[in-house]
Amino acid sequence: MHQAELILFLLGIIVAAKVAAELCEWLGQPTVLGEILAGVALFQIPAFREAPDHEAVRFLAEMGVILLLFEVGLESELSQLLRVGAQAVAVAVIGVAVPLLSGWLLLERMGYPTSEAVFMGGVLTATSVGITARVLRDLRVLRSKAGQVILGAAVVDDILGLLVLAVLVSTLAPKAGPSAHPAVLVGGAVLFLLGSVFVGMRIAPYLMGLVRRMRAGGTLVVAAVGFCLALAYLGELLGLAAIVGAFAAGLVLASTEERVPIEDKVKPASELFVPVFFVLIGMQIDVSVFNPFNPANHPVLLLALALIAIAVPGKLASGLGAFGPGIDRLLVGIGMVPRGEVGLIFATIGLQSGLLGRSVYSAAVVALLATTLIVPPWLSRRAGRLARASDPAPAQV
Amino acid sequence: MHQAELILFLLGIIVAAKVAAELCEWLGQPTVLGEILAGVALFQIPAFREAPDHEAVRFLAEMGVILLLFEVGLESELSQLLRVGAQAVAVAVIGVAVPLLSGWLLLERMGYPTSEAVFMGGVLTATSVGITARVLRDLRVLRSKAGQVILGAAVVDDILGLLVLAVLVSTLAPKAGPSAHPAVLVGGAVLFLLGSVFVGMRIAPYLMGLVRRMRAGGTLVVAAVGFCLALAYLGELLGLAAIVGAFAAGLVLASTEERVPIEDKVKPASELFVPVFFVLIGMQIDVSVFNPFNPANHPVLLLALALIAIAVPGKLASGLGAFGPGIDRLLVGIGMVPRGEVGLIFATIGLQSGLLGRSVYSAAVVALLATTLIVPPWLSRRAGRLARASDPAPAQV
Repeated sequence: MHQAELILFLLGIIVAAKVAAELCEWLGQPTVLGEILAGVALFQIPAFREAPDHEAVRFLAEMGVILLLFEVGLESELSQLLRVGAQAVAVAVIGVAVPLLSGWLLLERMGYPTSEAVFMGGVLTATSVGITARVLRDLRVLRSKAGQVILGAAVVDDILGLLVLAVLVSTLAPKAGPSAHPAVLVGGAVLFLLGSVFVGMRIAPYLMGLVRRMRAGGTLVVAAVGFCLALAYLGELLGLAAIVGAFAAGLVLASTEERVPIEDKVKPASELFVPVFFVLIGMQIDVSVFNPFNPANHPVLLLALALIAIAVPGKLASGLGAFGPGIDRLLVGIGMVPRGEVGLIFATIGLQSGLLGRSVYSAAVVALLATTLIVPPWLSRRAGRLARASDPAPAQV
Repeated sequence: MHQAELILFLLGIIVAAKVAAELCEWLGQPTVLGEILAGVALFQIPAFREAPDHEAVRFLAEMGVILLLFEVGLESELSQLLRVGAQAVAVAVIGVAVPLLSGWLLLERMGYPTSEAVFMGGVLTATSVGITARVLRDLRVLRSKAGQVILGAAVVDDILGLLVLAVLVSTLAPKAGPSAHPAVLVGGAVLFLLGSVFVGMRIAPYLMGLVRRMRAGGTLVVAAVGFCLALAYLGELLGLAAIVGAFAAGLVLASTEERVPIEDKVKPASELFVPVFFVLIGMQIDVSVFNPFNPANHPVLLLALALIAIAVPGKLASGLGAFGPGIDRLLVGIGMVPRGEVGLIFATIGLQSGLLGRSVYSAAVVALLATTLIVPPWLSRRAGRLARASDPAPAQV
């Protein structure tokens, strides 16, 4: 019966996601918003409530976001990413520094202990590249200059976020943290990214040459996904997210002759599993804390509103790091706003290590979710307006 | 770290499967044999030993066999299956009756209690449609007459096996069994199969019409896999295997205009996940019990040899149920031999309900695995010889 339950969960998730995405498409809203809301709705059905507790469902979601970032890497171009590299670093640094400092100051002013205030600042530094990459991709502006700046900045943000988390945990709660020195962690992450891309570029042609000589069926998809999983695993081992490794793998394979056949092969699997990731984000949103008519929610909601009031402008400011002709700084800033699952993981580490109290944690979760929900429609409206302004080339933002 | 471990398991499984399949291809052996042996080898590596214990890995394997039977259904034709229906029933009835009675007689003669002897006979009735369908498919003889007879017989065998299991458990170990009356179970199974195929045939065109009007991407693959999962879930609910439901779903969608695009969309996902199923079968083979130099294995091995000596001819006899011009009865018989995971599930129920002692259970496992390992090379040799004899139409056996 256990396998039957898992089949039902997967069935419910993919069908609800597709129906909601279709509704959003008709309403002119981003489909990823529909998938997240499908998760919120599904969680209200008792039969599906346990789905996120199952290892198999969580792993399918993880596979979904890994495949998404792999595809995003496949659609990117290393030369273009390097060209916007300086901007991406500037955007990421502003996008980490401003939320960190403003979150810290806000909570310190409100009378929270310094350690809790600093850690909350850290929670607000994360950027969820998944949400933004998905929206940009659906709008077909991923390969635009702004798209590549956001993408590069989100990857740099992941490394800076790792640094912030490592420093905060090792100084504020030494027992809960990773044992390695922060500098070692960050050095490892940077080496991994550069190494995997530049070593990968040399290995990939041989790998693909080998694939061409294979006789058994299905070799290309196994080689491509295997390469992606190998770098995802290495990324996770080094304390970076698996998705950074998957992105690097896509970037490497994008330089091979098999780019297009790989995209074609990966697409159906990603169409099945990417929505699982976004539905699961939705299933983790406890909408009852948003209810303003329940007085018990008021303190949490007020703190959450204050956090949103600094979290959103704090990331919008990061757009100021972008420069050059024709780039829209507001678009870049909006793209950096969603915290998604990255911020949630950060906050959960704070709760578990005792650095964040339960009410602060709840407020952080509300604020993080709000940043996640507002971005898809906002980003698509901004991109649409820019596209209309620069007609007749809608893909160039 | 937990997600990283799952990524490593999946990576190891798909890469080992592909390397072993490629070796088998070069050696002229069936690739599925390579995948099973890759599982045997992988289990010797300590880092991978726990993979089969993980819900996520088992579920990916289940998805693999569900997608395999879905594809087999897509490649079948209902009219052709119905044309060979009488033969399929005759083959299945012989293939259940002969192993049941001969297993029963053998163990009774060897002095085992009647209940254990009867149940062992029941264990030998199962047929693993997965192994046979995979080999026939790789050889491109699935749509031949013999291929369709085997396929139909394997589905009927599943229903008869359900009847045998239900009767044996409810009479021999009433506490362990399903609560419904065997007649209700079997009636439900038959109704489900007929109902899903004939009701499905009416629903499918509307479903596909709806899909054509959808705007969001990925609708076809979600609709097809969703339909497959829905019938798999229903099949599992009714006490039939999920794979029977998946097969019915494929059969239904094969009648729609989208048959070819669905096949194209499902193929990459099945190329990734089908090997997981066969590698996991291999990982459950404890090769140390095959070691004849360990005297402790001798009683189990002797009983296992006796079981193999009746299990193989017992299923070969089922080929006598096939008739008509040009059909090869030996090929049909060989196709019915593998017990695979179906027999293992059967035996495990016997062990858990106390009907089978541990030594009899071990011998049964060895015999079941032997039937699974010998079939792929045997079947491909027989099919190859027939193809050469009937040249120039190698796909017509």
